[in-house]
Amino acid sequence: MDFQAYWDEKRKLIDEALVEYLPQESEPPEIIHRAMRSTVFPGGKRLRPILALAAAEIVGSDSQKVLPTACALELIHTYSLIHDDLPALDNDDYRRGRPSCHKAFGEDIAILAGDALLTLAFGLLSYNGQMVKKGTVLFFIGEIAQAIGTQGMIGGQVDDLKSEEVTQPQLESIHRRKTGALMETCLKAGAILGGGSQREIEALSHYGQRVGLAFQIVDDILDAEDTKKVEAGEKREASYPALFGLEKSEKKATELIKEAKSQLSIFGKKGKILEEIADFIRGRGI
Amino acid sequence: MDFQAYWDEKRKLIDEALVEYLPQESEPPEIIHRAMRSTVFPGGKRLRPILALAAAEIVGSDSQKVLPTACALELIHTYSLIHDDLPALDNDDYRRGRPSCHKAFGEDIAILAGDALLTLAFGLLSYNGQMVKKGTVLFFIGEIAQAIGTQGMIGGQVDDLKSEEVTQPQLESIHRRKTGALMETCLKAGAILGGGSQREIEALSHYGQRVGLAFQIVDDILDAEDTKKVEAGEKREASYPALFGLEKSEKKATELIKEAKSQLSIFGKKGKILEEIADFIRGRGI
Repeated sequence: MDFQAYWDEKRKLIDEALVEYLPQESEPPEIIHRAMRSTVFPGGKRLRPILALAAAEIVGSDSQKVLPTACALELIHTYSLIHDDLPALDNDDYRRGRPSCHKAFGEDIAILAGDALLTLAFGLLSYNGQMVKKGTVLFFIGEIAQAIGTQGMIGGQVDDLKSEEVTQPQLESIHRRKTGALMETCLKAGAILGGGSQREIEALSHYGQRVGLAFQIVDDILDAEDTKKVEAGEKREASYPALFGLEKSEKKATELIKEAKSQLSIFGKKGKILEEIADFIRGRGI
Repeated sequence: MDFQAYWDEKRKLIDEALVEYLPQESEPPEIIHRAMRSTVFPGGKRLRPILALAAAEIVGSDSQKVLPTACALELIHTYSLIHDDLPALDNDDYRRGRPSCHKAFGEDIAILAGDALLTLAFGLLSYNGQMVKKGTVLFFIGEIAQAIGTQGMIGGQVDDLKSEEVTQPQLESIHRRKTGALMETCLKAGAILGGGSQREIEALSHYGQRVGLAFQIVDDILDAEDTKKVEAGEKREASYPALFGLEKSEKKATELIKEAKSQLSIFGKKGKILEEIADFIRGRGI
């Protein structure tokens, strides 16, 4: 199967599951369910849950077995976007070309919709215990709580908000936590719940760290190249291109992708899909 | 042991555990850890975790075995207070006589501190799997996600924010979800993780529903009697006294407490502490 077909198939699987897992819009209180659904759908590329499914498959499991967890990871990503967009944080009026959650539903509902998505995510993680060994699921819940807490995603966001001038190591640390920690956890989700060996879990975790950082650097590059944003003064200060210039940033992203792919050698031919995902992250082709 | 001594002992146990479970203030990013700790400590009466410990003991378990979960319930309560206090929601500048989290640390940090407490709570719930059967803990994580999601606590908060005029059944439904669902879950936490029988879990769950609603009615009564708040126009519209008057509200609270205590008959003499807690909720004596 070619890469585009693989992606489309997995995306469909994830979207259908998300439709099922999220409360109906008609269910009261309607407004919060509308807010949740309208941020989750149509959504982005579903990179994070696809990473989880691909990691499960590479360690020899079935992607159906980790589907609730993959969806939980997408809900966690969505919650973080809703809260990040709030006026008190990044103050973004638009998300993926549409009004952000607080613009469409008000700040109160946006805060609660984020809370509800995070809560539902943990509900889905526990539900995955019906398909995978319960002890393994419970262990993974501890892992994810760590990855998205103040040592991980939330901590990165705090430092991003509160740091005025950052050095390279500080910027890398922010990126690793704010974006990288959740992405690494997606790989670990598939690897751990899919029953991978310790060696496989570690390789996928290292792959995740590298593609996670590369993803954020590419994001910074795309932002820097977006002349409209630069003119409007929206260019972020704490970014790779701002610190190193575009050329060095491009080189760093390419290096990280190469390193990520080298982690896959233990999987032989089975590593192909994750190699292609790494290339996609570098090029943002899909 | 008399009731006050029991309460003091449990409160100490919970506070010591919370001190251990929460990240140190000196740990970076310091600001969010300061925000989390300064809202959790000194905190309130610790009613919710004490209900969990008492429920575990009444079904014959050791309160130490459910301590991480009891603390998680307190963190969930604290997260909900921080987010409820935000300007976009209830806009409360004070909490327990001190500046609320967003007044002390800014809205951005308050939003993230709430998120972090909720996340840490799920981490603690999973950690409880080291002391209690993992399948039981996983089942309870599903229960709590339901109780504090849009069918429970968050749903009640949405309806409280969005309902202008409410009828008695609507008000009761808001109270049951906004305050009652978490309190009922505290009882279930102790009962389920403590290894209670189905009959014991149900009795404690029914007890929890009744004390949860009574708690909110008493809260409304205390608010209505607080002349300063009434003069400042802060009296909530959607309250029992506003709908029924003080006398009927007092009667309803007393009835609920009586019903709650009657659920404890199956426990015989062991029910004494939970009876006293019910009386305390009615009188707010401690």
